[in-house]
Amino acid sequence: MRQVAAIIGGGVIGGGWAARFLLMGWDVRVFDPDPDAARKLGDVLDNARRSLPGLSDVALPAEGQLTFHDAMSESVSGAAWIQESVPERLTLKRKVYQTLQEHCDPAAVIASSTSGFKPSQLQGCATRPAQIIVAHPFNPVYLLPLVEVVPSALNPPDLVEKAKAVLTSLGMYPLHVRAEIDAHIADRLLEAVWREALWLVNDGVATTAEVDDAIRYGFGLRWAQMGLFETYRIAGGEAGMRHFIEQFGPCLEWPWTKLMDVPKLTDELIDKITDQSDQQSGAVSIRALERARDDNLVTILRGLKARDWGAGTLLNAHDRRIEGPVALPDDLSHPIATMQRAVPLDWTDYNGHMTEARYLHAFGEATDRMMLLIGCDAAYIAAGASFFTAETHIRHLDEVHAGRVILIETQVLAGAGKKMHLFHRMSTDGRLLATGEHMLIHVSLETRSASEPSPVLAATLERVAQAHAALPLPEGAGKGVGVRGD
Amino acid sequence: MRQVAAIIGGGVIGGGWAARFLLMGWDVRVFDPDPDAARKLGDVLDNARRSLPGLSDVALPAEGQLTFHDAMSESVSGAAWIQESVPERLTLKRKVYQTLQEHCDPAAVIASSTSGFKPSQLQGCATRPAQIIVAHPFNPVYLLPLVEVVPSALNPPDLVEKAKAVLTSLGMYPLHVRAEIDAHIADRLLEAVWREALWLVNDGVATTAEVDDAIRYGFGLRWAQMGLFETYRIAGGEAGMRHFIEQFGPCLEWPWTKLMDVPKLTDELIDKITDQSDQQSGAVSIRALERARDDNLVTILRGLKARDWGAGTLLNAHDRRIEGPVALPDDLSHPIATMQRAVPLDWTDYNGHMTEARYLHAFGEATDRMMLLIGCDAAYIAAGASFFTAETHIRHLDEVHAGRVILIETQVLAGAGKKMHLFHRMSTDGRLLATGEHMLIHVSLETRSASEPSPVLAATLERVAQAHAALPLPEGAGKGVGVRGD
Repeated sequence: MRQVAAIIGGGVIGGGWAARFLLMGWDVRVFDPDPDAARKLGDVLDNARRSLPGLSDVALPAEGQLTFHDAMSESVSGAAWIQESVPERLTLKRKVYQTLQEHCDPAAVIASSTSGFKPSQLQGCATRPAQIIVAHPFNPVYLLPLVEVVPSALNPPDLVEKAKAVLTSLGMYPLHVRAEIDAHIADRLLEAVWREALWLVNDGVATTAEVDDAIRYGFGLRWAQMGLFETYRIAGGEAGMRHFIEQFGPCLEWPWTKLMDVPKLTDELIDKITDQSDQQSGAVSIRALERARDDNLVTILRGLKARDWGAGTLLNAHDRRIEGPVALPDDLSHPIATMQRAVPLDWTDYNGHMTEARYLHAFGEATDRMMLLIGCDAAYIAAGASFFTAETHIRHLDEVHAGRVILIETQVLAGAGKKMHLFHRMSTDGRLLATGEHMLIHVSLETRSASEPSPVLAATLERVAQAHAALPLPEGAGKGVGVRGD
Repeated sequence: MRQVAAIIGGGVIGGGWAARFLLMGWDVRVFDPDPDAARKLGDVLDNARRSLPGLSDVALPAEGQLTFHDAMSESVSGAAWIQESVPERLTLKRKVYQTLQEHCDPAAVIASSTSGFKPSQLQGCATRPAQIIVAHPFNPVYLLPLVEVVPSALNPPDLVEKAKAVLTSLGMYPLHVRAEIDAHIADRLLEAVWREALWLVNDGVATTAEVDDAIRYGFGLRWAQMGLFETYRIAGGEAGMRHFIEQFGPCLEWPWTKLMDVPKLTDELIDKITDQSDQQSGAVSIRALERARDDNLVTILRGLKARDWGAGTLLNAHDRRIEGPVALPDDLSHPIATMQRAVPLDWTDYNGHMTEARYLHAFGEATDRMMLLIGCDAAYIAAGASFFTAETHIRHLDEVHAGRVILIETQVLAGAGKKMHLFHRMSTDGRLLATGEHMLIHVSLETRSASEPSPVLAATLERVAQAHAALPLPEGAGKGVGVRGD
């Protein structure tokens, strides 16, 4: 049975939570008094559906069911997780918790998306304060891994651990904030930058576009992969962190910022920022900007996955948790499923079609999976041998769009001695998209030339090859480019 | 004749400048009294050589010549650009300018890497203040595009424009800072974050690793592609920037930061940060961290290039400037060069070898170039027709490493009616790496099925096909996978 999440408040943040829970296989029950809530949440969900499933290198669980409820009491029925994302007013939030606790499971987690309040403030006059915790996410919630988990002294450790486990299962990174402070950790840093940026614009030093360029062409690129301290550790060079602080520390005393002071949000300043922002980004709708942002984030996150670094390492671990152990099937009378995944945004062109080279990318990963299944795993490769692809023949038969789930099934045409001859079929919903025929040679990674596989690997490969010998020769196998007929 | 840059001070920043100038084809003359300067600069240059050339999708100019000089006077001889990156002490910098101006070309640009001083402070008692300007880069200088160009009222507009043009030609983005303020723009923002982060660590709220995680799993990913204001514009949702400020503006008045106060850099705080940083990153050498950072930055930047967004748009424009106009060669008696580029880091595996799918990626781009050369350009495609690849046959013959320059030469095997049959050869220094044979079909983008090309395109393709018909049939052409001999 699917788990149930209740989403209290379905704006940009609540909608993002709803999308993440749904796409990770939870049923979601939404309460939001806004008559336009279903449409707004649908927009967020559309964005999430096109970007999140393909972020994974494995197929996500089947999407859960989404329902809207007129009463808060009804929405929390059966919910193991209740996420509150109502406006940042303490009295409102406290009133919401009162209603929630009258109707919800006492064992459920009630998590607040607050970016500012401390959990002990939220728990204030609650019936069961121990049930309420802060889980502060970042927009877009369905793509960014960070979520700040802030408990108070009243939250029992097992509730904190349970909350962290649920968030991890959603593909997020729960950053356990050990001390209650206003605005937690990330928003303190953001608030500092925001104030300084307002001064720069207010004083006419820079426009909103210039501030953004100063970030995205410079330190923003550094911070997507290393944070502040690791970056400065490198800046210190061989002498390291201590040298960096000693060299740059004195600047702290210089009058470099106006941080001591808060800019007044006058009508003039608000107009100035709004006008400059319109000039900078106004030619593009918010919807188009959201999609550009998501395309960029997926591209960056998947780049970091390929590097297995930072947020990419988190995502790889999440894929492994979803997929579980991998083994050769007992029944070898059919081609073997070697890939099932959604087409990610970074595999597609501006039209949303999967690009030519990504077919080989997918077939290459299917080949890697086949190697793993017959025993050519990380340990085997570390011991000094592997398979190299000598030849590839791809037939492109049909197009496929971002977000569609593709399946690759692999037939071993031959597997004896140093050679492994594979035939992959890529399809979506039974529609054949492409075939890939590959000749692989077993090599010694030391000499970089052909070598005999280990007896165990050879025996496994031969067992699959013999079972597959009973299958018909696939259409197109053995043909050259432009050669037709059979 | 190559242009000459003088690098005064060859540390991390000066070395980064030297590397960027050299790899963009300038001769570089270095002055640095540190006896270890050549080794240190060599380390930076090694990093730059493995990461920068492949960032481009076209071949960079031949590397310039690097020389070291014992006298500052000698280093500036013939230099059109003099980059000063000596320690941040005003008296020292002023003394350096005095010596420089005694010996350098009065028409040369003297640019300071200072992150803090205003140009008018630097110009203070100089002989020719108009020649001195701020060009503040970001580490790693050879990869990050941002450079803050800060003139004073004494700099003539043509000097400012010349400086910006040179920096643009180096692949950088000159952000013209129109008002002189301490620390320019980016470092004011960085300073704000740095102060707040020091407080978080000082007060035991977060460790250095937790601060970094709060950045790189969250807003750091946003800032690599959009800055602060564009991100918040989206956060405002359909109501936009004004709504965002009105909703979140009041928080500015809350006591969310300790910005009013400067943390004292006591020995205890320095020890705490250094120890935490060692625990976070100490298992990896600075050299390994630098390479991981560069691998990540290249991956992110190339992802943004594919998206043609932000820093990627800058890099694409730089490639087009380097390459100049593209046209079919007059002499069609040889295969046509359709690609020349360095193998980028994101095309390689952990061993530095180009991965399987990137061969097709490269062949696909060579095919795109061939299409462009025969007239299937952006306008032709926008008008509703293009070529789709129906079939591909790749033979992998040898391995190639990151940073090596690969060449693809293309032979048209047939080109008549709806079909274009291409044969690509990929080589490095005359060593054949792979061949790619491709059958392409001319299609209507509306019906997505085969269609006749325009008469002009058909005639051009036929002209090339007829000229290439005289060439011998390439070895391996027309063969199926596993089929040998001729």
